Amino acid sequence: MDLLTLADYAGTCAFAISGTLAASEKKLDLFGASFIGFVTAVGGGSLRDLLLGNTPVVWIRGMDYFILIMASLLFTFLFYRYIIKLKQTLFLFDTIGIGAFTIIGIEKALSFGINEPLAMVMGLSTAVVGGVIRDTLCNDVPLIFHKEIYATACIAGGTIYLLLTHLGADTFFSQITTMLSIIAIRLVAIKFNLSLPKITR
Amino acid sequence: MDLLTLADYAGTCAFAISGTLAASEKKLDLFGASFIGFVTAVGGGSLRDLLLGNTPVVWIRGMDYFILIMASLLFTFLFYRYIIKLKQTLFLFDTIGIGAFTIIGIEKALSFGINEPLAMVMGLSTAVVGGVIRDTLCNDVPLIFHKEIYATACIAGGTIYLLLTHLGADTFFSQITTMLSIIAIRLVAIKFNLSLPKITR
Amino acid sequence: MDLLTLADYAGTCAFAISGTLAASEKKLDLFGASFIGFVTAVGGGSLRDLLLGNTPVVWIRGMDYFILIMASLLFTFLFYRYIIKLKQTLFLFDTIGIGAFTIIGIEKALSFGINEPLAMVMGLSTAVVGGVIRDTLCNDVPLIFHKEIYATACIAGGTIYLLLTHLGADTFFSQITTMLSIIAIRLVAIKFNLSLPKITR
Repeated sequence: MDLLTLADYAGTCAFAISGTLAASEKKLDLFGASFIGFVTAVGGGSLRDLLLGNTPVVWIRGMDYFILIMASLLFTFLFYRYIIKLKQTLFLFDTIGIGAFTIIGIEKALSFGINEPLAMVMGLSTAVVGGVIRDTLCNDVPLIFHKEIYATACIAGGTIYLLLTHLGADTFFSQITTMLSIIAIRLVAIKFNLSLPKITR
Repeated sequence: MDLLTLADYAGTCAFAISGTLAASEKKLDLFGASFIGFVTAVGGGSLRDLLLGNTPVVWIRGMDYFILIMASLLFTFLFYRYIIKLKQTLFLFDTIGIGAFTIIGIEKALSFGINEPLAMVMGLSTAVVGGVIRDTLCNDVPLIFHKEIYATACIAGGTIYLLLTHLGADTFFSQITTMLSIIAIRLVAIKFNLSLPKITR
Repeated sequence: MDLLTLADYAGTCAFAISGTLAASEKKLDLFGASFIGFVTAVGGGSLRDLLLGNTPVVWIRGMDYFILIMASLLFTFLFYRYIIKLKQTLFLFDTIGIGAFTIIGIEKALSFGINEPLAMVMGLSTAVVGGVIRDTLCNDVPLIFHKEIYATACIAGGTIYLLLTHLGADTFFSQITTMLSIIAIRLVAIKFNLSLPKITR
């Protein structure tokens, strides 16, 4: 199993858990929490596959994502009190996940003959749309629209990835550099409380 | 016309009416109510078809769903005062509908070579996603995420359907047993005010 | 470049700007505003393409929509104070846009062998769904569900377009008549403060 698949799996679990936690803060029941956990994990990749015409979408072609998500849901339900204390671990998994999702989205789009700037958009969609659906279903304005340097980290990481690919860098090296860059940008953003400017008059 | 098609049509009408009623409670205008009625009726099946790659999606291939939905909308607009008193009839049609939608979603997914657990997810999506979109457009947290045993009834019904199919049961028998089970579970849940547990600390 | 393409481009820019403005009223950051501007511009056409199975969806096949949208976003960010005073120009572009989107949606659906009433639904989806997603992401009930004769203008325009096509009218003549009709209907509706009735008991 390669690095990207491992990171993809880690991200899928982190997203399923983050969806479930967001739902339980809204006092939703077990089904609501499971539904939102599921959609958070598969939403971004599904939208990418749909826009590209890559159907059936990836997560219904085999059992791996289904099993990972169901295990994450069960884990969250059983160890809820414990998990909500693991913010830093979840943050790490989530960040590894958006790194992997960005790279996978870019690669998938390029394999469909999509131009690089639009492949970046597909990479970004893969990484952020799950969280956008999660927050919309919870009746909140999506978190990433007004807090933190989340999407910016994906865009920077995706740019680094495309640059390294153009320079003929080794695949493994490009992947690990991209993911470490995304992790670094998010850590720096949180440490110095950086956020994107708003439009004002 | 077979039982499943009849139940599918009944469900489509019930969903169109439920969407229209939800929209009118939010003081939306005729177009808003029609839009939400339409989306509630076709949303679940559309998502299933999109994820499977079964396009053009079923409801735009022929005029039957369109005519049924337009008739339901017109009926709701003309007899609004009367319809809101018909809660039990609507409940029955709605429940027959989710039974049919669950079976149709499972069958369609299996015909695309999808594994049984994921076919269940497709059946469940067909049954519940219309209502999720309805409530999201009305700016509410989806009803089925925090009230009643709705999705649970679909999951139980879907499991019964797959079991009966494995046991080689007659198609008609499997269908009617599945739908009656879903109706029974919902009735029992409402009678005894059952609901799924929430996650708590 | 033909009239329809020009109108399509004008509409794409108007929608990107309207999404960005809506997002900035909600105090979203630059990424949130860009995301919503983007989705408002491509949302309707994407849904139409997905439902028809016309994938990869149109806007990721070439760079034209991407460049138009990015330019619109940049323009809005740089000249925000100035743009919010241009309500009438934006209204005109927006109305030209929904006219073009309606015609393009109808034509695309007919080319996929879809029946005319459902092609109308596809035209309407192309025109209004971007705005519906914009308002849902901003956590509002979609504007077009309770204000103004917006969708009604599209339905009337689409009907005129289909009638003229049946009568064998020249393509250019049909397009310009349809768009002028939609503009006229919206102007009249605003001048006389017309809106669709609501359902009441």
